[in-house]
Amino acid sequence: MIKIVVDAMGGDNSPTVNVKGVIKALNELSDVSIVLVGDEAQIAPLLQGEKYDASRLHILHASDVISCNEVPTVAIKTKTDSSMSKAFELLRTDADARALVSLGSTGALLAGTVLRVGRIRGVKRPAFCPILPTVVPNQIVAICDSGANVDCDPLYLQQFAVMGSLYLKKAFGVENPRVALLNIGVEEEKGDALRKETYQLLQKTPSINFVGNMESRDLLSGEFDLVVCDGFAGNVLLKSTEGACLELMRLLKRGMMSSLKTKIGALLIKKKMYEIKDLMDYNNYGGAVLIGAAKTVVKGHGSSNETAVYHCIKQAYAMESNHLVDAIAAELAPQQT
Amino acid sequence: MIKIVVDAMGGDNSPTVNVKGVIKALNELSDVSIVLVGDEAQIAPLLQGEKYDASRLHILHASDVISCNEVPTVAIKTKTDSSMSKAFELLRTDADARALVSLGSTGALLAGTVLRVGRIRGVKRPAFCPILPTVVPNQIVAICDSGANVDCDPLYLQQFAVMGSLYLKKAFGVENPRVALLNIGVEEEKGDALRKETYQLLQKTPSINFVGNMESRDLLSGEFDLVVCDGFAGNVLLKSTEGACLELMRLLKRGMMSSLKTKIGALLIKKKMYEIKDLMDYNNYGGAVLIGAAKTVVKGHGSSNETAVYHCIKQAYAMESNHLVDAIAAELAPQQT
Repeated sequence: MIKIVVDAMGGDNSPTVNVKGVIKALNELSDVSIVLVGDEAQIAPLLQGEKYDASRLHILHASDVISCNEVPTVAIKTKTDSSMSKAFELLRTDADARALVSLGSTGALLAGTVLRVGRIRGVKRPAFCPILPTVVPNQIVAICDSGANVDCDPLYLQQFAVMGSLYLKKAFGVENPRVALLNIGVEEEKGDALRKETYQLLQKTPSINFVGNMESRDLLSGEFDLVVCDGFAGNVLLKSTEGACLELMRLLKRGMMSSLKTKIGALLIKKKMYEIKDLMDYNNYGGAVLIGAAKTVVKGHGSSNETAVYHCIKQAYAMESNHLVDAIAAELAPQQT
Repeated sequence: MIKIVVDAMGGDNSPTVNVKGVIKALNELSDVSIVLVGDEAQIAPLLQGEKYDASRLHILHASDVISCNEVPTVAIKTKTDSSMSKAFELLRTDADARALVSLGSTGALLAGTVLRVGRIRGVKRPAFCPILPTVVPNQIVAICDSGANVDCDPLYLQQFAVMGSLYLKKAFGVENPRVALLNIGVEEEKGDALRKETYQLLQKTPSINFVGNMESRDLLSGEFDLVVCDGFAGNVLLKSTEGACLELMRLLKRGMMSSLKTKIGALLIKKKMYEIKDLMDYNNYGGAVLIGAAKTVVKGHGSSNETAVYHCIKQAYAMESNHLVDAIAAELAPQQT
C-alpha cells in the first residue's frame, strides 16, 4: 500500500476538485491510501454520497491555508495550522507517508520541501520538473529545472539531466529519454559559459542519452523528451509557451464568436478543436515534480480540475511504486573513497 | 533623402522578395534612396517591367553570399565579395549610407555590425530588439535583448531599457513606453542577482517608464511595450512564443483538413483565421533592430515575404528620419568631468 498525502486546500477550485480527484484515485488505484489534509467542515460534505473504499482515506484537519501571496519560507514556518504545513509535518514524521500532492503556492511547496523533507543524499539541488504535451500524440516533454534554482552551475544541470531521465523512465515508461540542453542555437559552441561547460559535461555522462542543444522553438516538436536548463530560462520557456498557446486560443475563440457565419463554422469544427485543446491540456498529463527531494512531491497547476488532481496522484503513485527516489539515490550517491 | 543599403541576397526567398520589397519602398517613401547589394544577374530580371523611380535605386554587384551555416566572424572577414560584407563596407565608407536591411545570417549581421559599424559612443553593448504583435490590435511589444548578449550585467540591461524606449518612440510613435523586466515572478524580490540589481537600477532611471517585473506568459497581453532581459532569456522568450504559435496553428490546420465536415467549417471561419494569422504575422510589423549600433541595422526574418522586407525598410526609414542614433547618443553620452 502506498500512502500519499494530498493537500485539500491549495488551488483555485479547492477543496472540490481536490476531493473529487482523490475519490477517482481511490477507485482507480487499488493499492493507494490517501491522507487528505484540510478543513474537515468543507471536506466532509463533498464526500457524502460518493462511492469509494473509506478504509483507504483519512482526513487530517487543518484550519488554515497558505495563499500564493505569502512569503513562502515565512508561511511554512509560522502558519503551522495550514494544510500545507501539516502535510509536510506528516511527511516528515510518518515514514509510511511517501508522497505529497498539492495545488498550492509553488514557493511554499519548494520551501516546505527544502525545510521539512530535504534532499536525496548526493543531490545538489532539487529542481522543478513539469511536463508538457507535444504535437506528437501521447508524447510528452519534461523541463528540468523550471524555476526552483535561478542560479545554476554545470554540475546542477548535469544532475537535472540524470534525475529527469530517471523520472521519465520510472513515471512515464519512456525507454531511453532524449535529453537536450536548452540553448540559443543548436551548434556545440553556442551560448554562455554555463551552456558550454554543461554541454561538455552532458556528453561525458554515460547514464543519459544526450542529443545536443535545442532551441526553445522546438519544445513542442516531440523531438526531445527532456529539456535541461537553469531555473530562470526554464521558467521563461514554460510560461511563454503556455502564455502563447492561451492567448492564441483566446483569439481564435473570440474570432469564432464574431458572426453567425463563423459560429456555424465553429460548430462544425468544435469536436476537432476540443481534441486539440485536450491534447494541449496539462490537466491530462500531471503536475510538476520537485525532483531530487527525499520524498515525492508533486505540484499541480493552481487551476487544475479533478482530472488533473487524479493525474498528479497517479504520477506520485507511479514514481513511488517504481522507486524513483531510490534510483536517484543509487545514481547520484557520493563516491565512497 | 535617406540612403538605405539593402542586402539583396539574404533570406529564404532572395533575391525575389528583397527586390520586390525595395520597389514597394521606393514607391511608398518618396525621400528614400536604396542601394541594393547582390548578384546583378539575378537582380536585373526582377526589376524588368516594374514601375519605380530608377534615379533612387542603385545596384552594387556582389558575387557571393554568406549562408547561415558559416561561422559569422570568419565569414564577414574572409568573404569580402559577399553581399553582406559589401553592404557593411559601404556603410563604413559612405557617410550618406545610414542604414542596412538584411534577411541574412543573424550572427554575421551582428559580427559585421560590431566589426564594421561599431557602437554609439557611451553604449556598452548593442542589443537585438525584435518586435512582436500582441493580442491588442495595432499594439506591438519589443524584446531587448533577444540574443546579441548572452552574458549581461545590470548596466547593460539599464541601457537596453533606455535604448528600447527611444526606439519605440522614434520608430513606432509609442508615447511613453511601458518597460518591464522579464522575471520569474512579478514581486520586486524575485529572480537572480542580475534581476534584483537591474530592478533597483531601472527604478532609478528617470528617462524610462518602468512598470516592474513581468512573467513571460504575459508577453503578448499588450500590457507592456518593452521587455528588458539578457540575450539568453530573451532568445528563449522570443523563440518559444513563436514556436508555440506555429505548432498550435499547424495542429489547427491539420485538424480542419481531417474531414469534409471540418473542411466546411474551416471555410466558414477562414476569413477570421486569416485575420488572426495576419495579426500574429511578423511580416506585418518589421524586423529586429540592432540597437546601439552607430548606424541603423535591421534584421528581417529569413522567411520574410516582400511585405516584410518593405516593413523593414520603412522601419529603418522611420528610425533615420527621427534621428534615433542621435537620440541614443545624447541620452547615453559619457558624462563630461
